[in-house]
Amino acid sequence: MTPTTTAWAATDATSPLAPIEIPRRDVGAQDVRIDITYCGICHSDLHTVRGDWKGTAYPCVPGHEIVGRVAEIGSDVTRHSVGDLVGVGCMIDSCGECAECRDGLQNYCRKGSTMTYNSRDAHSTAPRTLGGYSGSIVVTEGFVVAIPEGMDAAAAAPILCAGITMYSPLRHHGVGPGSKVGVAGFGGLGSVGVKLAKALGAEVTVITRSDGKADDAIKAGADHVLVSTKRVELARAARSLDLVLSTVPSRHDLMPYLGLLKRDGAYVVLGALEPLTEPVHGGLLAGNRISVTGSMIGGIPETQEVLDFCAEHGLSVDVQVIGVDGINDAYDRLAAGDPDFRYVIDMSTLRSV
Amino acid sequence: MTPTTTAWAATDATSPLAPIEIPRRDVGAQDVRIDITYCGICHSDLHTVRGDWKGTAYPCVPGHEIVGRVAEIGSDVTRHSVGDLVGVGCMIDSCGECAECRDGLQNYCRKGSTMTYNSRDAHSTAPRTLGGYSGSIVVTEGFVVAIPEGMDAAAAAPILCAGITMYSPLRHHGVGPGSKVGVAGFGGLGSVGVKLAKALGAEVTVITRSDGKADDAIKAGADHVLVSTKRVELARAARSLDLVLSTVPSRHDLMPYLGLLKRDGAYVVLGALEPLTEPVHGGLLAGNRISVTGSMIGGIPETQEVLDFCAEHGLSVDVQVIGVDGINDAYDRLAAGDPDFRYVIDMSTLRSV
Repeated sequence: MTPTTTAWAATDATSPLAPIEIPRRDVGAQDVRIDITYCGICHSDLHTVRGDWKGTAYPCVPGHEIVGRVAEIGSDVTRHSVGDLVGVGCMIDSCGECAECRDGLQNYCRKGSTMTYNSRDAHSTAPRTLGGYSGSIVVTEGFVVAIPEGMDAAAAAPILCAGITMYSPLRHHGVGPGSKVGVAGFGGLGSVGVKLAKALGAEVTVITRSDGKADDAIKAGADHVLVSTKRVELARAARSLDLVLSTVPSRHDLMPYLGLLKRDGAYVVLGALEPLTEPVHGGLLAGNRISVTGSMIGGIPETQEVLDFCAEHGLSVDVQVIGVDGINDAYDRLAAGDPDFRYVIDMSTLRSV
Repeated sequence: MTPTTTAWAATDATSPLAPIEIPRRDVGAQDVRIDITYCGICHSDLHTVRGDWKGTAYPCVPGHEIVGRVAEIGSDVTRHSVGDLVGVGCMIDSCGECAECRDGLQNYCRKGSTMTYNSRDAHSTAPRTLGGYSGSIVVTEGFVVAIPEGMDAAAAAPILCAGITMYSPLRHHGVGPGSKVGVAGFGGLGSVGVKLAKALGAEVTVITRSDGKADDAIKAGADHVLVSTKRVELARAARSLDLVLSTVPSRHDLMPYLGLLKRDGAYVVLGALEPLTEPVHGGLLAGNRISVTGSMIGGIPETQEVLDFCAEHGLSVDVQVIGVDGINDAYDRLAAGDPDFRYVIDMSTLRSV
């Protein structure tokens, strides 16, 4: 009989999430079964559940910021032991053979990595993978990372998606002391980005549409705040940033941000995985040799690296821990405007509901 | 009395170019007066004369691929001597003080470099600078480059704009042996790009809308040709290129080209200095960490470098030398579709017309 576990699922694009029973595969030779203790809520959970990105299969169990204890390991598993505190992020598998996989960049796997939820998967017992809003999950050991000792388990969860999403482009673009980094959008992702960029030694400017977030941005460690609707502020900051990490979660006009970049600066799309609203201006790109690029989470080695980096720097993500019965309220809050912390579900509440 | 010279000018956006007399400033302490022997015709001359980019002041004397002999030097000039074969490209001055100018990247001067024509200039005797379709020009010595010995003077002209425009992004993006470079658009600029990329050791693919240019592209040295309207061809070449240099001279949809890029590849806009037609897709950028960027000619040191590189590699640009009375026909031909050579005006014909 296929093992099952309780999970919170969306059955269509509009209904609230509710508990269901889901199958989990048997533990194979290279697999780890994890009893999930915490699962973060990511804005992309909301996008997927609401069908914003098309292709959502229902019932959909979201959740790709998974922290838990190893409960069982397969016969060939060497990296993890029963009882270890471990994490699973956005991916649970990839081809393992392409140049990207061989480079540890499974997130750019040429055949497409298997995402933690709503993804087709040869090994799956369900038509699509089912995520971490659940009691347990079975994952091949290569896609399981170690949570460093002493790290708060709940606060570790968002590092597995939000953390790596911000850390990877910071590292890829060589951010360090002396760098001037902009973070566009100050929600959960932006807040994590500010902390990571500061820990790397950068001077950080938050660019937000809303005046009301300025104090929180400064509290999170930002050196400066720009309100993007105030064109005079933007003009004064022209050509001042090496990098803008855009956490804006939906299609937007990037043109006002491009003027903030120094020569050779880059605008990195992280949140809006869809066509932007306005065509880019070739003359603006060429005139200052700036680039518009993107970044998609990060590979497994770099995910371990950001966890270790956070532990080493005592960097803690601001989280609000909720029970499973708080998921739908949290979604409403996210839909209304990204708060500058990450919600994390205490999965022990699963058993009491 | 202000010295004058004969020049070919456009008096409005629609009339043919015709000869006029224009003033040239007296030779200052740091100036060089050049008797122009050849001047290349660039597609941007056509854009400017026709008012495509707004802001054209008439009469407009185009021409920024200038080759000639030094006829007179100012008292402080040390780099050039009377009789030297020299060149002037797209710029004749810049602030000299900003970080970009100090780095030899006068093309990205923060105050805006002074372009060779249609640019405001504190030193100018005319409301706007007047370019190289003329008998002589006076330029500060720092913006005058040396034409290497033995280089054909007419064939050197296009290197001063087309050559540096292609060479600078090839170098900036680290192209060398093993690189796979695409050149989108196979006109004069594309043809120069193919030769430079090959000389740097790259494998080169020309991407053209027109089947008819395939043979010429191969003749110019391209290893492969893709016809951009054949989506099956494009799909087969997906993720095969490190870099696409886009010489497409007007607004276009870059989306079909982006799929050709490998992870971390870049699409470099060189010709279309205006808004492109379609917004970029954030998911496409992020999913393969590709970037859309641009490049604008090159600095003075790099302009000298590309001249020396061409001399060293025996690289010769295909040119068709015409007399001044052929300028208007050449413009018609350029407007109808970029030929894969560069027109160069023999300025000695100025005196006989």
